[in-house]
Amino acid sequence: MVFNYRLSEKAFEVLITIENKNFINDPEGETILQDLVLKGGYFKIKSVRIAKVLKLQVNAKNSLEASKLVKKMCDELRLFNPIVSNCDVTILRKKE
Amino acid sequence: MVFNYRLSEKAFEVLITIENKNFINDPEGETILQDLVLKGGYFKIKSVRIAKVLKLQVNAKNSLEASKLVKKMCDELRLFNPIVSNCDVTILRKKE
Repeated sequence: MVFNYRLSEKAFEVLITIENKNFINDPEGETILQDLVLKGGYFKIKSVRIAKVLKLQVNAKNSLEASKLVKKMCDELRLFNPIVSNCDVTILRKKE
Repeated sequence: MVFNYRLSEKAFEVLITIENKNFINDPEGETILQDLVLKGGYFKIKSVRIAKVLKLQVNAKNSLEASKLVKKMCDELRLFNPIVSNCDVTILRKKE
């Protein structure tokens, strides 16, 4: 029984990307741009925004199930603040 | 002259992804896994690793130039520590 259960599940690599909404300031990105990039002479860089990525390994029957599970988790465990941030869930690939 | 110069450059969206190498511990990801995800009952999540993403807008003639410029900047300004972290540069898309 356990054996069958394991066989039917695969490991997926899932990315959760959390970034501030466009109308929300990003002080960290702004500091990197002003005090590091532009002071370093890289004037062709016009903007820097920071995002945080959580790279998960998830066991699921298929990518749809993996994606649903992770989205539910993001909401339930409040991994991000929906007022200021966007949260994207991407299935990166199936692990062999 | 200035007009021509501007015409020949386009804006690219470039991602810099900085993450700890596999053999380096990731205390933040481990804490999220143990104290949030697993305590929340999400046992299908097997691993959490954290990465940081810088989303840049870069003016360049083509994507190769944009990529080279950003890689050079990452090394020169020490945006990451090459002993513990990997740094990936991805051209996301050309902005219209």
